[in-house]
Amino acid sequence: MHIALDAMGGDHGPEELIAGALLAVEQADLHVTLVGDETLLGSILGKRGSGSSASARIRIAHSSQVIEMNEHPVEAVRKKKDSSIMVAVNLVRRGEADAVVSAGNSGATMAAAVRVLGRLEGISRPGIASFFPTLKKPVVLMDVGANVDCRPLHLYQFAVMASCFSRIFDIGNPRIGLLTIGEEGGKGNQLVKETYALLKNSSLNFVGNVEGRDVFRGDVDVIVCDGFVGNICLKMSEGLAEAAMQMLRNEIVKSLPAKIGYLLARPAFNRFRKRVDYAEYGGAPLLGIDGVGIVCHGASSDHAIKNAILEARKMVKHQVNAAILKSLAADDNDRLMES
Amino acid sequence: MHIALDAMGGDHGPEELIAGALLAVEQADLHVTLVGDETLLGSILGKRGSGSSASARIRIAHSSQVIEMNEHPVEAVRKKKDSSIMVAVNLVRRGEADAVVSAGNSGATMAAAVRVLGRLEGISRPGIASFFPTLKKPVVLMDVGANVDCRPLHLYQFAVMASCFSRIFDIGNPRIGLLTIGEEGGKGNQLVKETYALLKNSSLNFVGNVEGRDVFRGDVDVIVCDGFVGNICLKMSEGLAEAAMQMLRNEIVKSLPAKIGYLLARPAFNRFRKRVDYAEYGGAPLLGIDGVGIVCHGASSDHAIKNAILEARKMVKHQVNAAILKSLAADDNDRLMES
Repeated sequence: MHIALDAMGGDHGPEELIAGALLAVEQADLHVTLVGDETLLGSILGKRGSGSSASARIRIAHSSQVIEMNEHPVEAVRKKKDSSIMVAVNLVRRGEADAVVSAGNSGATMAAAVRVLGRLEGISRPGIASFFPTLKKPVVLMDVGANVDCRPLHLYQFAVMASCFSRIFDIGNPRIGLLTIGEEGGKGNQLVKETYALLKNSSLNFVGNVEGRDVFRGDVDVIVCDGFVGNICLKMSEGLAEAAMQMLRNEIVKSLPAKIGYLLARPAFNRFRKRVDYAEYGGAPLLGIDGVGIVCHGASSDHAIKNAILEARKMVKHQVNAAILKSLAADDNDRLMES
Repeated sequence: MHIALDAMGGDHGPEELIAGALLAVEQADLHVTLVGDETLLGSILGKRGSGSSASARIRIAHSSQVIEMNEHPVEAVRKKKDSSIMVAVNLVRRGEADAVVSAGNSGATMAAAVRVLGRLEGISRPGIASFFPTLKKPVVLMDVGANVDCRPLHLYQFAVMASCFSRIFDIGNPRIGLLTIGEEGGKGNQLVKETYALLKNSSLNFVGNVEGRDVFRGDVDVIVCDGFVGNICLKMSEGLAEAAMQMLRNEIVKSLPAKIGYLLARPAFNRFRKRVDYAEYGGAPLLGIDGVGIVCHGASSDHAIKNAILEARKMVKHQVNAAILKSLAADDNDRLMES
């Protein structure tokens, strides 16, 4: 098992990414290829990895360019053919790696994957899925930003892809919900109403509508929505969690007993934080491409990078793409569209 | 100043609503007309309000029917002409009340208001606005559910209405943001891209795009989106706040020091909760109707009902509807649509 890691992306620089790669090879039976500036990566790896036997399972592939966070994905990928992300994706294309992981520009990672690896047969629109913590198991939401204007068939395919992906967490027959604004089938915007009919007629385990307030209940395994809504949900949840923590902190520092109380309760707070931390669940899988790819939050820690690498390994082992092809074949898409 | 209160709506029944009305008349110079079953309301009022001089400023208007939470809004309003919400809205139409407040079926309240009072001249789609707590002042988001499929003109009009409404909190020149998935003007779905151009060419204080994670920052006063996205944001925030509190509680009860710590920090928690509690800011205004109406959360406490009544009073005093008409006239809608 070989994972290509874009070692130039992410807010914390190559040190954090290499630390994540080292954690991954120490913990699991796999190889990591760091892609980026050979001299820079070699010197960091020399310092961090020396003496570790696991570091023998890390190698470096050189790339001379870097795609920055604010660059236009499609243009950047077209221009920077020797960027770390393009070189990493090409390793997958040539069979020298089984999957690619990047904490860099996620739009560019998606664009590179689609351009180099192509779409999975029968998939109209590849997309990005993401985890949301819930009161029970985490739920997989798709799409979270790759496709802003969608048709019902796209949402149906998101359901197929996210459902196959969620099985890597040993979920037998993933329950799929459709994100909308009312419980009954007839509620929602035009896109959702048409998608409801499509999902109901499919072979998927569609359990019906899910409202915004039910997302965190954990009563479904997969939630489907367009990438505009999904991205707003994702960013809003992150923003709300941060703002709430900030507001609570502002109140706690106002009094000594509250400060002491917080110190006593801190282990509980930390367990809570760990539970809602996306990094615990790995990165966001690119689904619908003919290969395996994971994008991580730019601010990912070494721990988060390690989890993303292990998640990529799981996706390869579980043959998620083969499962997607099989699930698509179980439904006759043309018939679905006519129904 | 006369506020009509639908005294039959809400999850906690008439007692809670009447308690809220009593708090309002005690605190401010206004009259409240409770609308609902005369005998029932009279007996509760007799018990709760006896001896209070403020209770002289509460009267009862009889209605024989109630629209339940799960009834179809438009049908229910058409069938139940003597429902508490229809009678309350009719008080406004006849000039016997200046505004209506309801914690009942909000769709039915909107339908009743549109049917009986009509739309404000020039407004295509009335909508519902709601407050979101932020690190600074609360922000007004519109629409939160009345209009699921929107055109750019509707979003522009939401911006006009929410902007005029937000001035009741003494905001001079409300900053308006457009909810989308990227910072630059070109980012978003088709609706948002077209709306961006419209807002940019309007006379409103449009400051640009707002991403999901910025909602809670408080850098804008008004955020505009379609009712599908807005409703999901609203419900999701409520759901996340509840789930996070539940998860935190689950962790705290696991250890004695954490429990003691929580007790010590409780006043800080309570201040925090008060800050994020929608009830502190009143209800959600119906905007774009030819009258003043506020819908409250079904679970509203007496305190929340009081705040909604005071908010309705403020809307009347600030002549929000006159301001909306003036703001619409400042922009030539036909010219905007062509631009």
